[in-house]
Amino acid sequence: MFRPAIKVVDCTIRDGGLTNDSRFPTELVRGVYKAICASGIDYVELGYRNSKKLLSPDEFGPWRFCDEDDLRAATDGIDPNGTKTAVMMDAHKSSVDDVPPCEQSVVDMIRVATYVKDVDKAICLANCGMDNGYELTINIMAISQEGAPFLDEALQQIEEETKVQAVYIVDSYGALYSEEVHFLAEKYKQYIKTKELGVHMHNNQQLAFANTIEGIIKNANYVDGTLFGLGRGAGNCPTELLMGFLKNPKFDIVPVLDAITRFILPLQKDIPWGYHVPYMLTGIRDLHPREAIQWMSSTERDDLVKFYKHLEVDYE
Amino acid sequence: MFRPAIKVVDCTIRDGGLTNDSRFPTELVRGVYKAICASGIDYVELGYRNSKKLLSPDEFGPWRFCDEDDLRAATDGIDPNGTKTAVMMDAHKSSVDDVPPCEQSVVDMIRVATYVKDVDKAICLANCGMDNGYELTINIMAISQEGAPFLDEALQQIEEETKVQAVYIVDSYGALYSEEVHFLAEKYKQYIKTKELGVHMHNNQQLAFANTIEGIIKNANYVDGTLFGLGRGAGNCPTELLMGFLKNPKFDIVPVLDAITRFILPLQKDIPWGYHVPYMLTGIRDLHPREAIQWMSSTERDDLVKFYKHLEVDYE
Repeated sequence: MFRPAIKVVDCTIRDGGLTNDSRFPTELVRGVYKAICASGIDYVELGYRNSKKLLSPDEFGPWRFCDEDDLRAATDGIDPNGTKTAVMMDAHKSSVDDVPPCEQSVVDMIRVATYVKDVDKAICLANCGMDNGYELTINIMAISQEGAPFLDEALQQIEEETKVQAVYIVDSYGALYSEEVHFLAEKYKQYIKTKELGVHMHNNQQLAFANTIEGIIKNANYVDGTLFGLGRGAGNCPTELLMGFLKNPKFDIVPVLDAITRFILPLQKDIPWGYHVPYMLTGIRDLHPREAIQWMSSTERDDLVKFYKHLEVDYE
Repeated sequence: MFRPAIKVVDCTIRDGGLTNDSRFPTELVRGVYKAICASGIDYVELGYRNSKKLLSPDEFGPWRFCDEDDLRAATDGIDPNGTKTAVMMDAHKSSVDDVPPCEQSVVDMIRVATYVKDVDKAICLANCGMDNGYELTINIMAISQEGAPFLDEALQQIEEETKVQAVYIVDSYGALYSEEVHFLAEKYKQYIKTKELGVHMHNNQQLAFANTIEGIIKNANYVDGTLFGLGRGAGNCPTELLMGFLKNPKFDIVPVLDAITRFILPLQKDIPWGYHVPYMLTGIRDLHPREAIQWMSSTERDDLVKFYKHLEVDYE
């Protein structure tokens, strides 16, 4: 019933870090890391490794940079139990100077996030990572706004110019319906014949988990989740739902439930996330959620008609 | 792009009434009715019409019985704008004595909810309703627990013995994945050749909207939603998401957004609904959500491991 080729990446700390400028206490990161390792999930992503020349450590917490010392503080003494550690590098915010040889690093896998326009930077970074011994993926963001011919060209380049192990569909705006997931999966598979397909979905229209399933049906073998869906705006595909669906006998959901209780639910005091109408409206309109996130922190947050009119009229 | 045959049923008051024993103030029901009519949605379901001999008016509010006087108080003076009014009758909790001739009633459509075991009662009630001039549907509840041969037999009977206009897949436990929706839709279509297919989904696994889309892809033309997903436990498919997906040019989402702001968001003070892990766990286990709902009102609600173990060990 389960498909052994499917790899789950829990990116609670990395993607969840977009809610708080990556300022999680080390004890929380240790707790999440320990739970994911104990659960049998394949990869745990502990943050971004972006360049301090491009982003300021005054403005962002440690998990936006993932210094090796911070990663060690979060992972030392914990049995990885087969779980590998990942970080994300944005193609346009990262530097090859921050990719030490893999054997000197806590990191096993680098995921390069890119827009289609930056695919040449992404390929350069990915190949540098490969040369230094890491596992690699390339994750194409804002896919709902990328179309032929440039997306096709980027996929062709990634296939020909890299040996990354997976290429991702990233629905940054939570805009896709299942038919579009199928369409994109088929398009990717036309080009990336020697690589796996990955999917990373957002929940603006309550479709993050469903669209991940649709990706799996279309042979995606790399799938992303976060604990209880933690993430900016409407959030992500919940890791716990993925575990229930996938039925891999190596999984143990108990550490994941325990981590949600101890580390994630308490965040709700300070960080709002999950489905709400403003996120739906940006999702349907295929817009970045920033307008909705800003609206949700205003005193007018419940005036849904006003936000709708803002998007329909002022935003045009 | 849109499919004119698709009919949307907003069942906010009926299904949402399971959260509060159907005790909505008349002004709220009027507000929701007015908004649904103005939005161009096809049907608005204003409650159950169950028998006062079987359920006590001391224990349930007016929208569990839908007396004609109460329906008139909620609808009089409002332009229906083409929207028809529905009530639900449970096959095992209703009486043919409560079906006056349609021309004496505010009601246009009766939806008969039934378990497979009660299908003979459902057919009897439906035919009584047809004879009295109403539109009719039969909605088969707890479908995730119904299998061959009795489901097949019930579908065959409904096809042969009634002229209802639609037969519903009702995922009462929020247990279905898209493959099962496809499977069930194909099974229904094998039998109900002269009737439409309907789908009513719950959100235990964040799949209510997604599974409704999958039903539509498999030719379901009757689809249910509630405003902001109001409903017991994890809730329902949100009507506002359906409107965004369906793109019927007759729809106007503004009255719906306004009704969410004015009538539904304020309910959050007293009624909790929406995705949470306990509802997910009953959904995955294909159980009635009552254990999860009870857990969520206890002081232990955030102890997710304890609830998991309760289901896995104590509940067996």
